Amino acid sequence: MSQKLLGIDLGGTTIKFGILTQDGQIQEKWAINTNILEDGRHIVPDIVASLKHRLSLYGMTKSDFIGIGMGSPGAVDRSEKTVTGAFNLNWAAKQEVGSVIESELGIPFAIDNDANVAALGERWVGAGANNPDVVFVTLGTGVGGGVIADGNLIHGAAGAGGEIGHIIVEPENGFDCTCGNKGCLETVASATGVVRLARHMAEGYEGDSAVKAAIDNGDDVSSKAIFEAAADGDYFADSVVEKVAFYLGLAAANIANILNPDSIVIGGGVSAAGEFLRSRVETYFLKFAFPQVKKTTAIKIAELGNDAGIIGAASLANQFAAG
Amino acid sequence: MSQKLLGIDLGGTTIKFGILTQDGQIQEKWAINTNILEDGRHIVPDIVASLKHRLSLYGMTKSDFIGIGMGSPGAVDRSEKTVTGAFNLNWAAKQEVGSVIESELGIPFAIDNDANVAALGERWVGAGANNPDVVFVTLGTGVGGGVIADGNLIHGAAGAGGEIGHIIVEPENGFDCTCGNKGCLETVASATGVVRLARHMAEGYEGDSAVKAAIDNGDDVSSKAIFEAAADGDYFADSVVEKVAFYLGLAAANIANILNPDSIVIGGGVSAAGEFLRSRVETYFLKFAFPQVKKTTAIKIAELGNDAGIIGAASLANQFAAG
Repeated sequence: MSQKLLGIDLGGTTIKFGILTQDGQIQEKWAINTNILEDGRHIVPDIVASLKHRLSLYGMTKSDFIGIGMGSPGAVDRSEKTVTGAFNLNWAAKQEVGSVIESELGIPFAIDNDANVAALGERWVGAGANNPDVVFVTLGTGVGGGVIADGNLIHGAAGAGGEIGHIIVEPENGFDCTCGNKGCLETVASATGVVRLARHMAEGYEGDSAVKAAIDNGDDVSSKAIFEAAADGDYFADSVVEKVAFYLGLAAANIANILNPDSIVIGGGVSAAGEFLRSRVETYFLKFAFPQVKKTTAIKIAELGNDAGIIGAASLANQFAAG
Repeated sequence: MSQKLLGIDLGGTTIKFGILTQDGQIQEKWAINTNILEDGRHIVPDIVASLKHRLSLYGMTKSDFIGIGMGSPGAVDRSEKTVTGAFNLNWAAKQEVGSVIESELGIPFAIDNDANVAALGERWVGAGANNPDVVFVTLGTGVGGGVIADGNLIHGAAGAGGEIGHIIVEPENGFDCTCGNKGCLETVASATGVVRLARHMAEGYEGDSAVKAAIDNGDDVSSKAIFEAAADGDYFADSVVEKVAFYLGLAAANIANILNPDSIVIGGGVSAAGEFLRSRVETYFLKFAFPQVKKTTAIKIAELGNDAGIIGAASLANQFAAG
């Protein structure tokens, strides 16, 4: 049997695991809950125990694996294989991860930031079609991303490469961002950003709209509801989606004017709107991209869903392959 | 004697040559005029003749060289080593370059776009300090650039990587750009762009200003004159420089939010304004960059001047070094 890759997608509520072939096909996958109690001290031991249990269950040993890769939230030290802080795991101080897993399992281990890892997954076997130049943008609670250029994941000078959510799209009158700046893409294109934009636009809208009525009524309104109302012909909701697409198309065009990737892949919860969102983002992208870039950089919707994390994590382990 | 690198910087008026050590020091340099007559058919033969003459003069043979690198204007086919069109060389059709030089000189040859090659030069021995992550922005007649990420010059899917001049900085009411879009950085930060911006701002300015008077008088005004007047306390000229710095700082921050390079290096004629420009660009950069990026990406002025081209071209030849 040829050797396999192990991918781990560490999240604030669940830890997902996958055993993959060297060409990125998932053979087994499972998940456990993330126990963040007591400063998250159970997380790494839980991962070790789950791996040992499953390997025993499948009759596999360390020699069956090329390596283990993991995607983690927070700040990751790739060379030390540690996480130096992750708010949603209750990890305030530096956390040993790689050293523990390598000594307990005897399998080489690699780690990177979760958004970067998802980018690697989508690039490898998802919408990126294994092209050497792919940018991934994930629209979730926040807006994250990862940049793969000339085959390499770009970390930059201090690991802040791929902070797509903090591209400034409203330099003059933008909303406050959690990062301390104003006008970041995240303030208008994350799930909460779409709702923030809708609330702001509702103040100046006079027409008939169920979404505007719900906002004015103080009801909870989700980005999903806004996209659904827009698709159903709510004019106000449609104007919100149009503005979100304008911001995403502008950011995508500027990314592409700098890097000319083969594709910019949009993932995360907000991307569930699919072609309805993609085609509108593309319209603005085509307005703002350099002529040669328009012809050669495609706007795509992610294909791997929740599996992007374990697939991309597994791809990190490919660095340990012989030769 | 250890082997040398040969760098050629092909321009519309002169062709510059340099013989460099493997660590990027220029040992000899010379230049010839570019003869663009008769569809530029003399250019490649002139390069060959000049190389043969100088090598003979210096008593050097092909075995003294690792390779030859060249930066060319226009559209370059790196794998074919051809230029597929360069307006300012009168090269309308595909031009054989590498095949001719390799067969005439017997030395391996590599070619890339001139802006990319200048970026390689500044990154190697200039302001980039040989860091693996450096972005170069050149402010001249147009605005060009080159992106080096994780040690690689980024060409992207179709060679349009590094089109820094076409980052959109005014999505709503920007000036028309030669590329067909509106609001590109080039329309406000190239030498002609600075003047265009000044003319536009002059329409709404009521105060006393020699620069505004010259514009209103129909006199020729240069970007250099605007920067000089600003440095001498002309309030109107100062407001123009401030706006140019805003646009450059915004573009630089968005580049850095995507790539977190070690430095963004500003070169070209407009960068002769030096620290006066750099410090203002940095102010806006610090306003728009993600917190971690602010701390780790520096804004610098280019150091190599006209030598960036031959030095970067020579660096292309390093790919032929043994081992």
